[in-house]
This record gives sequence, C-alpha cells and structure tokens, in this order.
Amino acid sequence: MKSLILSLAALSMMAVATAQNKMVVYQSDFGLKDGAVSEMKGVAMGVSADLKLFDLTHEIPAYNIWDAAYRLQQTVPYWPQGTVFVSVVDPGVGTSRKSVVLLTKTGQFIVTPDNGTLTLVAESQGIAGIREIDERLNRRKDSKASYTFHGRDVYSYTAARLAAGVIRFEEVGPLLPKQEVVSIPYQKAELHGAELVGTIPVLDVQYGNVWTNIPGELFQQLHVTFGDVLRIKILHQGKTVYSGEMPYVSTFGAVAVGKPLAYLNSLLQVSFALNQGDFAATYKVASGGDWQVEVTKK
Amino acid sequence: MKSLILSLAALSMMAVATAQNKMVVYQSDFGLKDGAVSEMKGVAMGVSADLKLFDLTHEIPAYNIWDAAYRLQQTVPYWPQGTVFVSVVDPGVGTSRKSVVLLTKTGQFIVTPDNGTLTLVAESQGIAGIREIDERLNRRKDSKASYTFHGRDVYSYTAARLAAGVIRFEEVGPLLPKQEVVSIPYQKAELHGAELVGTIPVLDVQYGNVWTNIPGELFQQLHVTFGDVLRIKILHQGKTVYSGEMPYVSTFGAVAVGKPLAYLNSLLQVSFALNQGDFAATYKVASGGDWQVEVTKK
Amino acid sequence: MKSLILSLAALSMMAVATAQNKMVVYQSDFGLKDGAVSEMKGVAMGVSADLKLFDLTHEIPAYNIWDAAYRLQQTVPYWPQGTVFVSVVDPGVGTSRKSVVLLTKTGQFIVTPDNGTLTLVAESQGIAGIREIDERLNRRKDSKASYTFHGRDVYSYTAARLAAGVIRFEEVGPLLPKQEVVSIPYQKAELHGAELVGTIPVLDVQYGNVWTNIPGELFQQLHVTFGDVLRIKILHQGKTVYSGEMPYVSTFGAVAVGKPLAYLNSLLQVSFALNQGDFAATYKVASGGDWQVEVTKK
Repeated sequence: MKSLILSLAALSMMAVATAQNKMVVYQSDFGLKDGAVSEMKGVAMGVSADLKLFDLTHEIPAYNIWDAAYRLQQTVPYWPQGTVFVSVVDPGVGTSRKSVVLLTKTGQFIVTPDNGTLTLVAESQGIAGIREIDERLNRRKDSKASYTFHGRDVYSYTAARLAAGVIRFEEVGPLLPKQEVVSIPYQKAELHGAELVGTIPVLDVQYGNVWTNIPGELFQQLHVTFGDVLRIKILHQGKTVYSGEMPYVSTFGAVAVGKPLAYLNSLLQVSFALNQGDFAATYKVASGGDWQVEVTKK
Repeated sequence: MKSLILSLAALSMMAVATAQNKMVVYQSDFGLKDGAVSEMKGVAMGVSADLKLFDLTHEIPAYNIWDAAYRLQQTVPYWPQGTVFVSVVDPGVGTSRKSVVLLTKTGQFIVTPDNGTLTLVAESQGIAGIREIDERLNRRKDSKASYTFHGRDVYSYTAARLAAGVIRFEEVGPLLPKQEVVSIPYQKAELHGAELVGTIPVLDVQYGNVWTNIPGELFQQLHVTFGDVLRIKILHQGKTVYSGEMPYVSTFGAVAVGKPLAYLNSLLQVSFALNQGDFAATYKVASGGDWQVEVTKK
Repeated sequence: MKSLILSLAALSMMAVATAQNKMVVYQSDFGLKDGAVSEMKGVAMGVSADLKLFDLTHEIPAYNIWDAAYRLQQTVPYWPQGTVFVSVVDPGVGTSRKSVVLLTKTGQFIVTPDNGTLTLVAESQGIAGIREIDERLNRRKDSKASYTFHGRDVYSYTAARLAAGVIRFEEVGPLLPKQEVVSIPYQKAELHGAELVGTIPVLDVQYGNVWTNIPGELFQQLHVTFGDVLRIKILHQGKTVYSGEMPYVSTFGAVAVGKPLAYLNSLLQVSFALNQGDFAATYKVASGGDWQVEVTKK
C-alpha cells in the first residue's frame, strides 16, 4: 500500500513537472547597463526558438539575497503554472552553495543558487520538490573554462531546457534528501494583545511607501474599518525612527496631498505612505530584518 | 437612411475592434526595481500564452500624467493597428476617475484611468470609441480584496483579454455617452506675425535636448532653410531663462561640439540642442505647461 | 578553377545569409525613459508580427561608440546564428558615415552606423560580408521628412525586414568594396618578458570590477595557478593610479570580504575585484584606451 501511495505521489509530481509552458522569467542583480542579461537570453534562445522570455527585475541591489527572495515571493504567484524563473543573486558563486531547481506546490519552477533566495517563496508557495542541478548534464557546452558566469552557463541554460521540454524536472539532477531550502531568519508578524508587531521586508522603492509583513487577516483582528486612526511606531535596532498617527484608508486620495495614510498593498499587507509623497525618504526608513513596526488602534 | 448610416458606422467600428493582434505594450510610473511590472505581465500571460508583451517605458516620473500622455502620443502611431496599450499612471486610484479603453481612429486600443493620460493621443489619433471598463466582468478573479493594484487586476487583465480576442471591444463595458476624454489644458503652438510661440511639452531626457510643440508645417511659415540663424527665447512663468541665436540644421554635426542648434526632431517638431552636450542642464530648462518658447528668424 | 571557388564562397554566404531566425536584439544610448526604443520596436512588429524582439542594453553612455563596440563583442557570440542586432549609438547622424549591415563569419547580422561600433565584433567574429544600406529601398515609407531618427526609420526597419526574411542579405544594398569596417585604435594585450600589458576596455559597471583585454591564453604564459600572488599596476595616461598585490583565485569567496582578487571573467579575460566591494570606485579606476595595466607574477 505504501508503494502505491508513493507511485501516486510520483505520478502527481510528474504531471506537474511536465506542465512547462515555454515561459522563462529572469531576475538578477546585474543591472541593465552591460551585456550579461542579454548573454543569458541568447543562450536560452539557442536552446529553443519557441521560448518566451520575460524579466522580473535586474535591479536587485548587488548581493542582496533578501531582496531577491522578496521579489520572487511577490511575483511568482501571478505567473501561470509551468513558468520557469531564473534568479541569479549569487555572492557565493564558486563556493559550496548548491545550484538547485525548486518546483513549488503551485507549479512554478525556480532555478537559482540555494543561498536564501528561496526563503520566502518556499514558505508561501510550498515545496513540491527540490533538485540539485547535475552540471555534468546541465551546463552549456564549451563553458568549462569559465569560472564566474553560472547565470548564463548553468542557470539560464538549464531553465531554457526545462521550459522548452528538452529535459523533464527529473532530469535536472538528484532530489535533495531533506526537501528543504536554505532559509534566512526573519521576524514574523504577530499580535501581542492589542498591538501588532512585524518587520519591514521591503520598501515600495519607486514611491517610497513602507511595506510591512503584517497580513490583512492578522490586521482584521484589530477590528479596524476605513477612516479609523492607527498609532504607528517604526524602530531600527530598537530605536524609534518614526512615531505618529494616520487613518486606515481604501485610497490614497482619501487624505490630503503630503499626509500619511495606512493601507493594504497589492499583497494585502499593512503599508504606510504619504499621499503623492515619499514616506521612506521623509522619515529615513529602510527595510530589513533589523527594522520593527508596531501598530495599534487609537 | 439615418439608421443605415448608423449601421455602417457600427459595422466599421466592429471591423476595427476585431483587428486585435495579440500585442500588448505597457507604460507606467512603477520603475523596474520591484515586481509590479512582472505581476502585470504574468496575469496577461495567464490569460493567453499567445500574447506578445512589450514595454513603452516604466520610468514616467511618479504621478506625472502629462508625461504619460506625451509618451503615448509619441509612440502609439508607430505600432500596428490592433495593438493594445496599457498605461498606468494613476495618482487617483480608488477615487471616482473612470477606468476606460479608448479605440483610436487609427485602430490602437489604450487601457488606462481616464485622468488626462489620453489628452494628447485622443487629439492626434482621434477617438473611434471610448468605453468604461465594467469591472464586474473585466477584473481578475479573486482580486476583490485588493484595493490598490488596478494596473494588474483590471488594466492588464482587460488588455490581455482584449488583445487575445477573449473579449471584443464591445464587451469592455458601456460606451461613454459624450465620447470624449478627460483633457489637461496646455498652450498650443501659434504664429503671431513673424514670431512662433509654443510650449516645451517634454525634454529629450537622455540627451538634454529641448523639444517644443511647434510642428514643422507651422515652422515652414517662417521660410527658414538649413543654415539660417534663429533667435530663440525660452521663458518660465513669464521670466526669460534663455535667449540666444542658433542655426537651423539638418544634422547635429553641422555645428561644432558644444554649440547650439535648432532642428526638427523625430516627431518633426522644432527642437533645440547642444551638439554632444546637454542643453536643458546647461541652461536649466525643464518642461511643462508653464514654459514658453519664442522663435523668430534673424 | 578560381570561378568555382568563388561560386562555392557565394553559395556558402547565401546559406548563411538565408538563416535569419526572426530574432532582433536592440542596443542604443537612448535610455528607457522615453518612447524611442518602443517606436523602433513598433516599426519592427509592423513589418512582421512573427518577430521576437530583445534588448542588449539601452544604457550605453550617450555618444560612447567604444562602449557600444564592447557590448556587441561581449554579447553577439551567445546568440544563435541568424540573429539580427541593431546598434544605434550615432553622434554623426546626418553626416557622411555609412549605414551598414555586417554579416559575421559566425552568422549574426549587425545593423548600425559604420562609425567604429563594429571595431571589436568584426575582429572577434570575422567579416563574412558588409553591405551599405540602400535607403531608397530600405527606409520606412513616409519617413523622408524626418532627419534625425535613423534608428527607427532605417535601422530597425531594415533589421526587421531582414530578420523576417522579407529581404535577403543581398537586398540590403551594395557590398562595401574593401570589406572592412571603420575601426577605433586601441592598445592590444602583449607579453613583454615576464610582464603582461594591456588596457581596460570596460568596467563591470554593476559591481565595479575592472576588466582588462588580456585573454586567459596569454595569461597562461605567466604559469600562474590558483592561489599564486600577482603584482598589479594600473596607470592612467602614464601615471600610476593603483599598485598592489592580490591572489589569482577561482572564486570571489576565496578571499575575505573587501579584499582584492584577480580572476578570469566570463569572457575569460584577466579582471580585478574586491570581494563584495567596488574596486573601480575605491581606487578611482575607469576604462578607455588611455588606461594601461601591468601584471607580473610575484
């Protein structure tokens, strides 16, 4: 009976694994000023002219694995099952960090160094399987002499072959025995009596809005409705950086230009902004595990 | 007889409306540093894997509706009939501004908040029809709880369905009764005796060239030929910022490096530049309705 | 016998020339803030809806032909045979510089002003043929009145028609009689006794790593193995800017954070970096023909 269950699980995984849709989405800290991203894409299009290539972002701050993890979690759920992501933020290139492909429970693949990049997406989407890339099979021909561009020679090449159906997920390489990813520790969102606490995982950099990791469902437990005023405190390494009051609103236009407001962002997480202003720059707020937010109802 | 004319008009509109070509072109003020653009594209590719997605720009200055309007006018004419544009510069998200789809007389669709973004392209390409998006039908499933990302859940989703032929233009929602767009007032180009006046709608930001809204046809009325010298005055809120002379040339190389010149830009509008220099930075010239230019022949 | 050889050469060239693969890759100094890149792409998609459009970079520093040449050399080899590149860095637009299409010996096409942009790629990939664009045949209809946007009206239009198979390479225009490109002079890498000399053709701008033009094969002649220490001197216009020692390593992680290292970059050229730091900014090193590097084994 156990073997039957295993077989069904294996069949189920194969069904997901064969759903590749020819789409590849790239993320890196390479920027767009040189040829690196285009080299990766050229290698992919050399694998199959049928592929459709997209970008998540190439403006991840250099070596910032946390940011790479955050952007994946933010974006992966909106892409169809079978999409293959490539994420190359790889300060440890050439060290013993593993090169892996994660298959999420929602059916997306992520090709990346296993250096913390998968921390958040593995939590939110779930792990259906994780395999270490066997570079003897999955490495661009004639690339042995190059020590530094795994993004092109291993990650983009493997992603392209997987997306195009040249290889199946099973052919990436061996399953990692523990089926877990390397994770970066971070402060989770929690309700302490009438106070919500959490961190600032990321800024909405284009506008300077502050995004917390406090989900809408937890926020509901404060029994707040639109127009109610919140007391917000933001701390960095235990020191208060901002303290103030602002209404919880459904639209930025509900407060005057330049005034603060609290809202649920597109990920349905508690966020703070100045209407048509830059909250983060005005109050010198940044993101990362050493930032803390406290939210109470007035 | 009148009903026959109406029927022919309706048939003609349907013919245009069914010419969608699977191309979607995105514009926003989101920047490329986070996952927002990629979320929009993921939703579109989930609608149809046959779509071809492109970018106009995502570097519109935050909340700058005028710039969004200008970029559409600049770009739309060069794309094939049936192309669907998505423009999301939306400071009034959540207020009463309408979400619309414009069908131009030249056969392109533009999906956008009707907040002034359509000012210039409606003038230059003409309005074949404008419909308000019926969000009961044209909104991504399971997106009700999100208040802030219409770009993804309404605009990109509707654009993708329209471009892929899942819906026809008629299925976007009801025709706006007045068939007109929300327009931003601005100074038009005019000839006053021997003097041309106009505004600076935009800078050629990459090079610092100054583009006016004075078209080549109006400029012809000064009877200027290549090599003739022009007197140029540039004013901001009525105060002179630049005053000087420069030749009208067919190529930047016609003047020495660093010298000023007047030319017709790729939109065939009168423009000013320094050969291999930055006119706007050198003379602190910017763009917008409160800038005025005066051009006379020496 | 001679005519037979010529015929075979002609046949061989035709075979390469007809291998267009519908892929077009764009490079320019236009930036991504305005509509110029999108106008070029719209024109291409109007030629054929089957084209697949990609970007190399649009962040070439304004008017920097050397950088354009470098990025092409870096990227072209990784794209499939038949790919058509468009490179528009064109300070001499409107002067007598020729508009050409280069067919490399490796089967890629490059559509560009012949102003030095082809210097490096012609050397590294070889010249199979170079033709001047006949603008009477290969220019967008109704574009005669525009003097300044050859990128859209000539280069992208011609590239699209070539990539889509609307025209063959022979129909671009006449072969240039000398079959050579306009070249920018630069210092080549050489071994002087026990000392390697070369230049800094480019920086790895995103990370501040310094890339030289000294190839791995030449570097081998110093008989260096991983862990050996090198003496590096960097000079600008003959004046020493940096002088120091660093190990030659296979991975950045082989030295402590912030420490210098020498490595072979993804082009297998000798390069210098600070582990997780910015070598170029720290020591004020830039790129160009007036920079010199000297490398010896300690």
